[in-house]
Amino acid sequence: MTEVIFQPIGRRIDARPGDTLLEVAQEAGVALSAVCGGVGVCGDCRVRVLRGAVSGVNSTEREMLSGADLESGLRLACQVAIEGDSEIVVDVPPDSLSAPQRSQVEGEEIALDVAPVVQLHHLAALPPSVEDLRGDWERVQGITPSDWMVPAAALADLPGILRQHDWRVRMVTHGRDVVRFLPPARVPLGFAVDVGTTGLAAYLVDLTNGQTLGIAGATNPQIAYGEDVMARLTLVVRDAAGAGRLQKTIVEGLNGLLREVCAQASVTTRDVVDVVTVGNTAMHHLLLSLPVEQLGSAPYVPAISSPMVTPAAPLGLDVAPDARVYLPPNLAGFVGGDHMAMLLATATANQPGVTLSLDIGTNTEVTLNAHGQMWSCSTASGPAFEGAHIRDGMRAADGAIERLIWRDGELQWLTINHARPVGLCGSGILDAVAALRTAEIISLTGAMDRSHPNVQPEKVNPWFEIAPASQTGHGRPVAISRSDVNEVQLAKAAIRAGIKLLTERAGVSEMDIDRVIVAGAFGNYIDLENAIVIGMFPALPLERFHQVGNAAGIGAKRLLINAEERARAAALVRQLTYIELTNHPDFSDRFSQAVMLTPDPWD
Amino acid sequence: MTEVIFQPIGRRIDARPGDTLLEVAQEAGVALSAVCGGVGVCGDCRVRVLRGAVSGVNSTEREMLSGADLESGLRLACQVAIEGDSEIVVDVPPDSLSAPQRSQVEGEEIALDVAPVVQLHHLAALPPSVEDLRGDWERVQGITPSDWMVPAAALADLPGILRQHDWRVRMVTHGRDVVRFLPPARVPLGFAVDVGTTGLAAYLVDLTNGQTLGIAGATNPQIAYGEDVMARLTLVVRDAAGAGRLQKTIVEGLNGLLREVCAQASVTTRDVVDVVTVGNTAMHHLLLSLPVEQLGSAPYVPAISSPMVTPAAPLGLDVAPDARVYLPPNLAGFVGGDHMAMLLATATANQPGVTLSLDIGTNTEVTLNAHGQMWSCSTASGPAFEGAHIRDGMRAADGAIERLIWRDGELQWLTINHARPVGLCGSGILDAVAALRTAEIISLTGAMDRSHPNVQPEKVNPWFEIAPASQTGHGRPVAISRSDVNEVQLAKAAIRAGIKLLTERAGVSEMDIDRVIVAGAFGNYIDLENAIVIGMFPALPLERFHQVGNAAGIGAKRLLINAEERARAAALVRQLTYIELTNHPDFSDRFSQAVMLTPDPWD
Repeated sequence: MTEVIFQPIGRRIDARPGDTLLEVAQEAGVALSAVCGGVGVCGDCRVRVLRGAVSGVNSTEREMLSGADLESGLRLACQVAIEGDSEIVVDVPPDSLSAPQRSQVEGEEIALDVAPVVQLHHLAALPPSVEDLRGDWERVQGITPSDWMVPAAALADLPGILRQHDWRVRMVTHGRDVVRFLPPARVPLGFAVDVGTTGLAAYLVDLTNGQTLGIAGATNPQIAYGEDVMARLTLVVRDAAGAGRLQKTIVEGLNGLLREVCAQASVTTRDVVDVVTVGNTAMHHLLLSLPVEQLGSAPYVPAISSPMVTPAAPLGLDVAPDARVYLPPNLAGFVGGDHMAMLLATATANQPGVTLSLDIGTNTEVTLNAHGQMWSCSTASGPAFEGAHIRDGMRAADGAIERLIWRDGELQWLTINHARPVGLCGSGILDAVAALRTAEIISLTGAMDRSHPNVQPEKVNPWFEIAPASQTGHGRPVAISRSDVNEVQLAKAAIRAGIKLLTERAGVSEMDIDRVIVAGAFGNYIDLENAIVIGMFPALPLERFHQVGNAAGIGAKRLLINAEERARAAALVRQLTYIELTNHPDFSDRFSQAVMLTPDPWD
Repeated sequence: MTEVIFQPIGRRIDARPGDTLLEVAQEAGVALSAVCGGVGVCGDCRVRVLRGAVSGVNSTEREMLSGADLESGLRLACQVAIEGDSEIVVDVPPDSLSAPQRSQVEGEEIALDVAPVVQLHHLAALPPSVEDLRGDWERVQGITPSDWMVPAAALADLPGILRQHDWRVRMVTHGRDVVRFLPPARVPLGFAVDVGTTGLAAYLVDLTNGQTLGIAGATNPQIAYGEDVMARLTLVVRDAAGAGRLQKTIVEGLNGLLREVCAQASVTTRDVVDVVTVGNTAMHHLLLSLPVEQLGSAPYVPAISSPMVTPAAPLGLDVAPDARVYLPPNLAGFVGGDHMAMLLATATANQPGVTLSLDIGTNTEVTLNAHGQMWSCSTASGPAFEGAHIRDGMRAADGAIERLIWRDGELQWLTINHARPVGLCGSGILDAVAALRTAEIISLTGAMDRSHPNVQPEKVNPWFEIAPASQTGHGRPVAISRSDVNEVQLAKAAIRAGIKLLTERAGVSEMDIDRVIVAGAFGNYIDLENAIVIGMFPALPLERFHQVGNAAGIGAKRLLINAEERARAAALVRQLTYIELTNHPDFSDRFSQAVMLTPDPWD
C-alpha cells in the first residue's frame, strides 16, 4: 500500500501498486474529468506527478498530449500506474476537474464530533390486542409518557413501519418535535447547501456518522434574473411577483441538487431530516421569501440577524415533510451566514496571533482576528472578478482564459477545458493585469503603454490584444482594455482598503498578519503572487496564505453534523464587531491610495 | 326594554316595544328562516309565543297560517310586535330555523375565561439608522434577547408592518414559536370546527375576548364517498389514492366554512392564528391523512390517542401559514375527540351524583360519571336514525317527516319546511315507532298488527302507510315497515345496553341517574317521551334530560379560548375507563333484552 495525495485540495487515500491514478482519484472522490471513462481517448484527466514512483509515459499519452504538455510534466491519470510503495503527490490542475468541482464543493475540513441537532431513537413496541387498545403513538412511548410532539405528516408513517418491521421503528426528533419515523435499517440524512449568488454547492450527509454520501454543484438558477445581488433585489422591489419567482427558482435548483446527491447514495430525499443552507444576506432573504426593500436601500438592514430554524416544507424543499432548515446568523445586510459558516469552518475565531479571513466576491467579506478580538466588514469589490463590466469578461466556463503569464516577451494563456479562448474569467483577469504590470505595459496608475505593438491605441480606451481573432473561438480578438484595468483597480482597492482599515482598527500592521485565509471559488483559483503584484493583498510570505476552497459549504456541513457548531455560530456573531465602511471617515482616503497597482500602496 | 328568550336554544336578548320578533331574533343571532325578508309572504318564520305581551294575530297571519296552525299557537315572527315590558318567551320549532342551524352549530355554553394557547404581544421598535443596523426581528425584541423562534412565513410580514405602522406591531406566539405578526389594530382569530361524519359546524372567535364573530354549518362533503364511517374507511383501505381525496375534500369543506365565517366578520382568513377541530377518531385520521387500516379492523386501534398539535399549512388550511391545529385526544378507535369536547362543554366530569352523557349517531358514545368515577363506551347503534337501512328513511332535509303523533285514531305528521312528505328523518322514525307502539299497532317485540286497516299485510315485511301516495312529494306512499321497526329496535337496544352496562359497572341503577345529557343534531331534535316509550332511554323524569345541541362544537370553541381546557381534555382521557362492548361477557344478554319496545326491558 502507498499513500496518494491529491493537491491542491489535499485529499489523501491509500492505493495499491498497479492502480491507475484515475481509479485512485475516483475512489478518493476527486472528480477528475474523464469523459471517455478512462480509456485514454478524451485526454481530459491531465495531472502532474510531483513526487513518487509511477509508470513511464506511454504511447497513448504521447498521442494525446502535445510536446509542450509532456515537457511541462502533464500526464493522463488513466494511463499512470502506481509503482512501489513510496508516497505519491499528484497535482490536479483546475481544468482537469469535471464541471461540478469548478463550482467549488470541495474544501478543507477540520475534524468534528458527530452530534447533530436531530436525535435518533430506536424504539420497539408490543402489538395491540383486545387487552391493549393503545394508539400506535402511545405504543412506542413506553410506560412514561414523554412530552414529544408528533405532527401529522411524520405520524402517518408509524403504523405501516411498525406492522412491516416487527414492531420496531427508528424515530428522529428535533428538540421535542418528531421529524420522521424510519424503518429500523434506514439512516437519517442531512442536506447542506452553500447558496452562492453565482453557484450552489450541495452535500448529503449520513447523520449517524457524519460521512458525506454525495456532493453536487450547479449554477444558481436565479442568475437568469440578474447576475448580481443588487439586480435581483431590484427585480423583487419593482415587481411584487418577482420574489415568488426567485424563491421558486432557487428551490427548484436546491431540489435538483437534492435529487442528484440522493441518487449518488441511492437513498430517498424524504429521509433527509435536517437541512442547513448558508448564503449571503440577500440569498438568505430570497430563499425564505423575506422582504428585501429594507435590505436593498440604506441603511441596509436585514429582516433578521439571528440564526433561523424554519420548516422546510413551506419553502418547497422535497425533504422529510417535518424537517427544518437551519440558517446561520447574518451579521449585517452585506455580511451573511455564508461568511459565518466560512469563519466556523476555518476556525478563524480560534487562531492565535493575527488572522485575516476573506470571502472574495461582488461583495468581499473580510474578518480580522487580532489576538482574539474580531472585526468584520463588507467591501463593494464589484463584479469584475466575476467577469462583469469587463470587455471580454466571462464566468469560469469552457474557453475562459484562466491563467496568464508573461514569458519570453509575450503573454501566454491557458483556457478552461482547452477550448479556444472566448474571454477571461476572474483569475485570468487578475493574471492579465499582473502580467502587463510586470511587463510595465500598464503603469502604477493603470495607464496603458500605447506604444506597445499589441496595444490598440484607441483614444479613450486603448486595449491589449491577448489572443488574436485567428486563435479565438468566436473569431474576435480577446483583449483587456484600459477600463478593464480600472475595474480591477477598483475591485482590488476595495478589498485592500477593507483589510487596511480593519488592521488599523485592531492596532496592528498588515505585516503582522500571521495567516490569510482565502475562501471561495475565485479565491481558490487566483494566483497569489499576482494578487500581491497588483496590491490586492499585502506582500506577505506566500506560506502565510491558505486557499481553503469552499469553506462556506464545509461550514454548512459542520452546522449539520454538530449542534454545538450552531451555538458557536450564534456566539460568533456576538464576538464580531461590524465596521460599516460606507460612512467610515478614512475609507475614501485608503481606497484612493489602494487603487495604485503596487504591493504597498501606503507609502 | 324587555327581555326576549328564544327556546329551546336559550338565547336571551333585550328588545324594545314595537320590534318584531323576527328583528329581535336576527339581532340575537337566532337564524329564523325568512326567505321573503320579513314581509309576511313566505310563511317560514313560524314561532310560538309561550309567555309575554305581544300584538294579536293579524290578517297576514290569517292568510298564511292554517286554522290548525293558528289553533296550535303558531305565529309569524315577522308579524308579531313586542308590547309592554314583561319577559317574552318564544318557542322556535326546529323547522323554522334556516338550513345552517339544522346542522347544529348552536349549543349551550358554560362561561370560560379567555386565555388562549396563543399569546398576543404589543411591541414597539426604534427605526434603523447608520448607528443601529440591527435586523427588524432583533429590533422588536428589546434589549434582552428572548428565545422566541420565528419561522420565515411569519417573519415576512414584519418589515412591512413596522414601516407602515410607525414601528409598532402585534406579535402572536404559540409557546416559543411566533405564529404571526399583525398590524397594531388587528385582532388574532381562532377557528373551531366540529367535523361530524355527516355535518360540519364552524365558529370564528376573537381570541382577545372570546366572542364568536361568525358561525356556519355545512354537510361534510366526504358524504359523496360514503354515508358512514366504515364506508369511508373501506374506500381508503381499498384505494391508495382514496385517503388523499378524502383529505382534500374535507379540507375544501373546512376552507369553505372558514371563508364564510371570515366574510361574516369582514376579516381575512390569514389572521386565524389557531385552529381546533374535533371529530370522531375516523374523521380525525382522515383529516390528518393518517393511515386507517388498523382503525378499520379489530382490535381497532388509532394511530394516536394523545392530543395533537400539528401545523395547519401542510393540511391545506388557508389560515395563517404558521398556525397550528389542535385536536383533542381520542379515547379509543370509536370514542374520539368530539366526545371529549362534548364532555368538556357539558362539564360532565364535574357534575355531582350520577350523570349520563350521550352522543347519538351511527356509533353512540356514552359516558357515565357516577360520583366522580367515569366509564365510556361506544355502541354500534347503526345508521337507522340517520335514515339509512330504512324503507323510506332520509336525512333531515325538505320533505322529511320529522314529527309524528298518534291523535284521534290516526297518525299526524309534520315535515321539514312544510314540503310534501317524501320520507322519514331520524326523529320521525323514532316518533313513528313510538306512536305505533302507543296505538298497539306494533307489539312489544316489534311485530305489526296485520289486521289494522293502514297496514299492508305483506308476508315477510308488512308496512304501515303514514302518508298515502296522493299526499306525497314523489307519488309513492311514505310508510314504515316491520323491518324498519326492527332496525330501530337494534339501534335503541345498542344504546340502552350500553347505558345499562355502564350503570352495572358503576354499581348504580339506571333510576339513580340524576341527569342525562343528550348532545348532537339527532339528540337535540328527538322527542324524549317517545325515546322513553320505545325504551331507548330509562324512564327518568323528563326534567333530568338536557338536550344540549352541538356540545362538541361548543367544546371545540372552548379548547380554542382557554389553554387550560386542553389540559382538562388530556386529564379527562386519563380519568375515563374505556369499556369495550364487542367482547363484553354481558353485552349480548343485555342487548337482546333491550330489543323489547318498552321503557323497562329488564323485567
